[in-house]
Amino acid sequence: MSSIDKVLARIDADLDNSLDRLFDLLRIKSISTDPAYKAPCREAAEWLARELNTIGIEAAVRDTTGHPMVVGHKKSGKPGPHVLFYGHYDVQPVDPIDLWKNDPFEPSIQTREDGSKIIVARGSSDDKGQLMTFVEAARAFIAETGDLPIDVTILFEGEEESGSPSLRPFLEANKEELSCDLALVCDTTMWDAQTPAIAVMLRGMVGDEIIVKAASRDLHSGLYGGSARNPNHIVAEIIAGLHDENGKVTLPGFYDGVIEVPDNVKAVWDNLGFSVERFLGEVGLKEPRGEKDRTALEHIWTRPTVEVNGMWGGYQGAGSKTVIPAEAHAKFTFRLVGDQNPDKIQEAFRAYVRSKIPADCTVDFIAKEGSPALRIDFEKPAVEKGKKALQDEWGTEAALIGMGGSIPIVGDFKRMLGMDSLLIGYGLEDDQIHSPNEKYNLTSFHKGIRSWARVLSELAEK
Amino acid sequence: MSSIDKVLARIDADLDNSLDRLFDLLRIKSISTDPAYKAPCREAAEWLARELNTIGIEAAVRDTTGHPMVVGHKKSGKPGPHVLFYGHYDVQPVDPIDLWKNDPFEPSIQTREDGSKIIVARGSSDDKGQLMTFVEAARAFIAETGDLPIDVTILFEGEEESGSPSLRPFLEANKEELSCDLALVCDTTMWDAQTPAIAVMLRGMVGDEIIVKAASRDLHSGLYGGSARNPNHIVAEIIAGLHDENGKVTLPGFYDGVIEVPDNVKAVWDNLGFSVERFLGEVGLKEPRGEKDRTALEHIWTRPTVEVNGMWGGYQGAGSKTVIPAEAHAKFTFRLVGDQNPDKIQEAFRAYVRSKIPADCTVDFIAKEGSPALRIDFEKPAVEKGKKALQDEWGTEAALIGMGGSIPIVGDFKRMLGMDSLLIGYGLEDDQIHSPNEKYNLTSFHKGIRSWARVLSELAEK
Repeated sequence: MSSIDKVLARIDADLDNSLDRLFDLLRIKSISTDPAYKAPCREAAEWLARELNTIGIEAAVRDTTGHPMVVGHKKSGKPGPHVLFYGHYDVQPVDPIDLWKNDPFEPSIQTREDGSKIIVARGSSDDKGQLMTFVEAARAFIAETGDLPIDVTILFEGEEESGSPSLRPFLEANKEELSCDLALVCDTTMWDAQTPAIAVMLRGMVGDEIIVKAASRDLHSGLYGGSARNPNHIVAEIIAGLHDENGKVTLPGFYDGVIEVPDNVKAVWDNLGFSVERFLGEVGLKEPRGEKDRTALEHIWTRPTVEVNGMWGGYQGAGSKTVIPAEAHAKFTFRLVGDQNPDKIQEAFRAYVRSKIPADCTVDFIAKEGSPALRIDFEKPAVEKGKKALQDEWGTEAALIGMGGSIPIVGDFKRMLGMDSLLIGYGLEDDQIHSPNEKYNLTSFHKGIRSWARVLSELAEK
Repeated sequence: MSSIDKVLARIDADLDNSLDRLFDLLRIKSISTDPAYKAPCREAAEWLARELNTIGIEAAVRDTTGHPMVVGHKKSGKPGPHVLFYGHYDVQPVDPIDLWKNDPFEPSIQTREDGSKIIVARGSSDDKGQLMTFVEAARAFIAETGDLPIDVTILFEGEEESGSPSLRPFLEANKEELSCDLALVCDTTMWDAQTPAIAVMLRGMVGDEIIVKAASRDLHSGLYGGSARNPNHIVAEIIAGLHDENGKVTLPGFYDGVIEVPDNVKAVWDNLGFSVERFLGEVGLKEPRGEKDRTALEHIWTRPTVEVNGMWGGYQGAGSKTVIPAEAHAKFTFRLVGDQNPDKIQEAFRAYVRSKIPADCTVDFIAKEGSPALRIDFEKPAVEKGKKALQDEWGTEAALIGMGGSIPIVGDFKRMLGMDSLLIGYGLEDDQIHSPNEKYNLTSFHKGIRSWARVLSELAEK
C-alpha cells in the first residue's frame, strides 16, 4: 500500500470523528457582519487554532482590529512548493430565520429522498465544511506518515462575509510569513455532484448603500401626499433606472474593461452541457433575466451585474400606516469582470444616484470595499496537478469554470504576495449558501478530504 | 351671565382637571393596527364609557368582531337637531420609536420657544385630544345647566387607524339607534393656529399591498446575479412606473371622475394666503412634487395621488449580505377625489402590477377597503351655525377647506344613515400626527372645548 493509499484508508476509517469535529465548529455562531456575534467569532478562531495544534500544525489566533485570523505552519524546508491554504470561519446571517427547518446552529445529517446524505447547518458549505476538508486531510497525512508531503501554511479568516476589512492590513503586516509558492483556496463549487472543478475566472465586486432623506420627519400621506417628496419613490426610480429594456446596465462607462471570453474557452463551456432551465428550475424560476444578447453561462460567469440586495423605507408591519417616510434605503452590489475598475464603477454609480436626488433631498453613501475580477492561467503546472488529483478521486475530468461570486482574497494574494491560487471546492449549486437550510453533501465532505490528500501528494511530485 | 357664558367659565376653571383626564386616556396604548395591543384598545373603550357615564351620558362598550365601539346617549326629545358626535380612540403605531424625544405614552405639557404650550403624546392630536374636547364641553354643559342643549348621541370607534373593518357592519346593525339629524366629527385641522376651519372636501382612499415572489428561496447574488429575477428590481419598477415625468399617475382611467374645483371656490382659496414654501419648509422640504400643472393646494386637497407607504425586500441589517431575496413587498395608498371609484382604481392598479410580473414570478395582493371622496354642501344651515360659533370663539372667520386625508366615516354616515356631517377640528399641520413626537396645542384643546360648547349652543338656536 502506497502512503497516499494508507492516508485515504485512514480518512475513510476516521470519517465519523471528522464529522463530530465539523459539527463542533458548525455550532459556533460566527456571524461576522453583525457586531452582536463578536464573541462567537473569536470562539471559532480559538477552536481552529486548538485543532491545528492538536494535529501537529503550530497555530495561533492573531488579533486584528476586527475578527481575528488563525495562522498555522507545518514546514521544514521540504522540496516541492510551499503552499498556503486559505478558508474562512465566519458565516452569513441566518435571517429569515423562520424559513429554516432546523436550528441553523444545530447541525444534523439528513437523508434525502434519493438516499444521499447532507450536512445541514449555517456554514456547512460556506465555508466551515470546505475548510475542514483540508484540516482533516492534513490530520490523516500527519497521523499516517508523521508529516505533510510539502510545507504548508494555513490562514483562516473571520471576515470574508463582511468585506474582509482586516485582511489586506494583515497580509501587508505579515508579508514574509505568508508569502508562499502557491495558495490553495477552498471556497468554490464543483461543476455538478459528479464533476469536480477548478475555478479559473472569478467576478470581482464593489458595493454601495444609499440613504435617501426627504422630509425632516415621517409625514401623513393624506395631509402631504401629492406635495411632499416620497423617498420610497426616489429609491425605486434609482433602482428601476439602472437597467435598460435589454437588461444592460445604464451607468456611463459601466462596460469599460469588460473582456469577451476567447472562443476556445466558450467552446469548452458549450460542451459542459449547462442547462439554464435546470439551473433556474432548481430555485423555482424559468427564464434568465440578464442581458438579452448573452448566453446563460455568460450571465453568471463573465458579464457584470448590479443587484439590489436590500431595500426598505416606511411601514413594514401588519396592517397599514398612511405615512410618507422621512428616508429610504437600498444596498447594491456590482459583480465585475475583466478589467472593470471598482473605483470607477462606484464613481459612476454615485454620480447617477446624485443626478436622481431632488434639490431638497439628500443622499448618503456607505461604501463596501471593491475588488476587481480575476483570471487564472489555465496552463500552470499547479492547475494540471490539481486536475490529475481530482480526476483520480472523482473518476471524471475536472472542469475549468468561471465563478459568479467574488473571492477577493485571490486578487490580494496575487497583488500583495505575488502568489497564484488553485481554487478547488466541493460545494454544489443547490447548497443554499447565504440562504435558509444551507447544506453540504456528505460526499462533498468525505471525497473533499480525500481530494486534498491527493492534491498534496500530487504537488509533492516533481 | 348667559348660560353659555357660565359654561365657558366652568370650562376655563376646570382646565387642569380636563388635562388630567386627557392624560389618563393618552397613557393607554390603543394601537389598533397591531394585534399585540388588543387589550389596551378595549381598556381605552372602557375608560371612555366610564367617563361618559360619570358625566351623565348613558354609555356602554359595544363588542364588534374587532376592537369595540363606545356608544352613549343623552336625549329627551329636545327641539333642535339630534346630533351624533364621532371620534376615534385608537392611535397610530409609534415606530420609529427612537425618534421620539419622550415616551409616546407618557404625555407631558411642554413649553416651546415662543412661550406656547403643547401636549406631547401619541394620539394627543389624532384623535384622543380632539374627541376629549367634545367630552369636556358636554361635561361642563351638564354640570352647569343639568343637561345638554340638544339631544346628543356619541360614537367612539377603535379601528379608524386600521381601516375601520367593523364600522359599516356596526352602523348597519344599529341603524335606528345611530341615525341622527347631523353628525359632528372632530378629526380635522384648523386653517392655521389663529383661523378655525370647517372641512367641506375630503379625499377618499383605497389601499393595496403587494408581495412579489421570484425564486423559491433567497439566492447568492454572486452565483445567481445576472440570471435570476430580483423581486426588489420588479417592485422598484412597479413603483417607478406609477408616475410620468409630469407627476401624473399613469394607470389607465385613473383620472376618470376627477372633478375640477369651481372658480368661485378657487378664488376663496387663493385668498387664504397659503404658502407652499412655509407648508413644506416646516418639514424641511422646498419644492412641491405633484402634477406640474397644478397649484399646491390642489396637490393636497383636490388632486388624486398614489404613495408608497412602505417597501422592503432583502437584507436590512448592518453590513452587507450578498443576497437576491425570494420576495419583496410594497404598501400603496391612493387618495381619491371627486367621483373616482375606489374599486376601479384598485382594478386598474392590479392590472398594471400584473403586467409587470415576469412569467416565472408571482404577485399576491392584500387589499385595504376603499372609500370615495366626499363633498359637503357649503350652504347648509349647520355649516353656517358652525361658522358663527367658531368665529365667536376665535375672533376670525372660519375657513371652508379641503382635506388631503380621508375620513371614510363621513361617507358612511351619508350613505348608510342619510346623515350630513359637520367637520370641525382643532389640529394643526405641525401636529406630527402619524409621526414621532405628535403634539396638540394646549390652545387647541382649551379653545376646542369652548368651541364645541358654542357649537352645541348655536345648534340649539332656531
